[in-house]
Amino acid sequence: MITVEDARALLFDLVGPLPTEEVPLAQSAGRVLSRDVTATRDQPPFAASSMDGYAVKSDEVELHAMFKVVGESAAGRRFEGAVGPGQAVRIYTGAPVPDGADFVLIQEDTDRRGDLLTITDTPGAKTNIRPAGVDFKAGTSISAPRSIRAEDVALMAAMNIPRVPVSRKPVIALISTGDELVMPGEEPGPDQIIASNTFGLKAMLEGLGAVVRVLPIARDTVSSLETAFGLAQGADLVVTIGGASVGDYDLVSDVSQGLGMKQSFYKIRMRPGKPLMAGRIGNAAMVGLPGNPVSAMVCGYLFLAPMVRRMLGLEQVLPPFRTARLSGPLPENGPREHYMRAVVTDAGIEACADQDSSLLSVLAQSNALLVRAPHDPARDIGEMVEYLPI
Amino acid sequence: MITVEDARALLFDLVGPLPTEEVPLAQSAGRVLSRDVTATRDQPPFAASSMDGYAVKSDEVELHAMFKVVGESAAGRRFEGAVGPGQAVRIYTGAPVPDGADFVLIQEDTDRRGDLLTITDTPGAKTNIRPAGVDFKAGTSISAPRSIRAEDVALMAAMNIPRVPVSRKPVIALISTGDELVMPGEEPGPDQIIASNTFGLKAMLEGLGAVVRVLPIARDTVSSLETAFGLAQGADLVVTIGGASVGDYDLVSDVSQGLGMKQSFYKIRMRPGKPLMAGRIGNAAMVGLPGNPVSAMVCGYLFLAPMVRRMLGLEQVLPPFRTARLSGPLPENGPREHYMRAVVTDAGIEACADQDSSLLSVLAQSNALLVRAPHDPARDIGEMVEYLPI
Repeated sequence: MITVEDARALLFDLVGPLPTEEVPLAQSAGRVLSRDVTATRDQPPFAASSMDGYAVKSDEVELHAMFKVVGESAAGRRFEGAVGPGQAVRIYTGAPVPDGADFVLIQEDTDRRGDLLTITDTPGAKTNIRPAGVDFKAGTSISAPRSIRAEDVALMAAMNIPRVPVSRKPVIALISTGDELVMPGEEPGPDQIIASNTFGLKAMLEGLGAVVRVLPIARDTVSSLETAFGLAQGADLVVTIGGASVGDYDLVSDVSQGLGMKQSFYKIRMRPGKPLMAGRIGNAAMVGLPGNPVSAMVCGYLFLAPMVRRMLGLEQVLPPFRTARLSGPLPENGPREHYMRAVVTDAGIEACADQDSSLLSVLAQSNALLVRAPHDPARDIGEMVEYLPI
Repeated sequence: MITVEDARALLFDLVGPLPTEEVPLAQSAGRVLSRDVTATRDQPPFAASSMDGYAVKSDEVELHAMFKVVGESAAGRRFEGAVGPGQAVRIYTGAPVPDGADFVLIQEDTDRRGDLLTITDTPGAKTNIRPAGVDFKAGTSISAPRSIRAEDVALMAAMNIPRVPVSRKPVIALISTGDELVMPGEEPGPDQIIASNTFGLKAMLEGLGAVVRVLPIARDTVSSLETAFGLAQGADLVVTIGGASVGDYDLVSDVSQGLGMKQSFYKIRMRPGKPLMAGRIGNAAMVGLPGNPVSAMVCGYLFLAPMVRRMLGLEQVLPPFRTARLSGPLPENGPREHYMRAVVTDAGIEACADQDSSLLSVLAQSNALLVRAPHDPARDIGEMVEYLPI
């Protein structure tokens, strides 16, 4: 058995950044920018007024000064002439400042009668002009890699980047195994339960930016599992759930090794989720998750999510652990790392009462995995602990 | 001019929760559960072993006790008989515990030769049996409203809920206005800029769970804007961007009122984003956002996001403000509420140097809006301030 940290290092060896594809700007939010993108023009492309008012020469600005209004500059329709001495041009927010002008009087500081403009309030020192290129200049880049937020989309639009280079989404095939499983919507027999792991993991992995293919349930036979592996071809990552010990042998490991899987490791010194297996099969990485629903989801957060982030080319791939103050005591931990279901609030973090790895109801009520090191001593209220938000 | 808080209250009067629709379980993540859903069976549906081992009678469990193995209970295939005195049944994790047995010996505590089983290590007090219904019982509900997480999807799968009642997604039509605008990918003229607001807002609003229709850019004419409003029909919310003051009149307000818009308010005492207008037009709510890119995005976070959450039927609709310690000083604030672009890290929060509302590059570098009350005095490093994560 190896540690969680060693397992993650080995998992990172199984996957690498995926190639770039281009998507329309409107589809880029939430994707990972995979190459730097660069503005091809200045923004604003011209000196622009930041207010509604009048463009004049700054050395003529003083209380009671008078100007003749000679034209108008609107957004998209600049004043084509130049502002001469004693002249003013009506200007609107965002419009190009005309040649000859270097100051915009705010309209509230003026009085206009016909073409005659008078300064009626002392203008401030601000010119109310945004210089050309003050937001960004031609050649300004947005650096990859980067998870694209709404703000980045707006900025790329302003930079006139209609197509965006992003990492291809990893394709993940999910195979649930077990004679006892039926799909949601089916009528289960008395010995059967509903397949829940693939649905939970699909939601988790799609939220991280993967494309998920849910394959038919594999039964606890060699031929059924071989059929499922056949259907998984083309995926970047094949994830099996359950089947780690069936009868007296390890079905998933044996069948996948029969299909050429090169095993990287087997079993991790952790709770929940000890029987976790990984390797490469064909062109894909492969991870065998434990079948207990909570174990499968926890292993998803700890191992699959970092693999997805690595395939997406992100720099921050490790789970984003944080610290919080205990609001309930903790018993001594055993010999394995323990990821306890917990609830974190402004008042602190408290582990859920029942840590059995079959309890999806407890997982759904929790919003954190509280991390315990092997043999971590009992902890009191007020001590700081590490956790992973979920 | 009204306050941000008053504006939000008026905006909430313009929209209400949308009707329920059913989606397949696999499409439910990220949606808002709109009606309680209820399990129709117990989980597990039978007393189940939590370990691989042997099912026996607990009153026969003691060191060196011997049993005859009479059968096997696997997941999906229970042992049909009953366990009698001196008998044991081979059992696997998740399998039904046979009648007559109330204890599962862990296989590591036993030695088996043929059909003869001997207890070789003193078993612990735990029975290693999960009672029927320990995760949830038939009739257990998940309460609406609730943003559906991956964990909820897994739980609903286990509850055998194949179709999920969720709030219909709000449909939002976005209309950019301005003679100066061209779409990304076009070749802008010297006086033109690229439409960025609709792209940024589309990404933001889709991330919140809305369906966004980006309409053709409306020019600064009555007929062009009327055409755009015509295309917006069927939306739950129509959002215009810019056009608040064009020439010497308010184009969007005038045209929309000409089309029957009932105005709720106009102008908010805030920075950035003062010219914000709202009302109802036909069957839709309508919001007129300012045209400066940063103002439009900030108003999106402060006003559109809460409206979307209200339409989705969520209980927590207000922006999720937090507090942080200042890591840079702040100057005195003016008479309007100010939402400063800022960067929050573990070290604290610091406002960006340039707060001009045209700077998308600054917005893209920030991850928070630092809230300043009207006339808030200058603040020192170390003081606590309120912010909205973005």
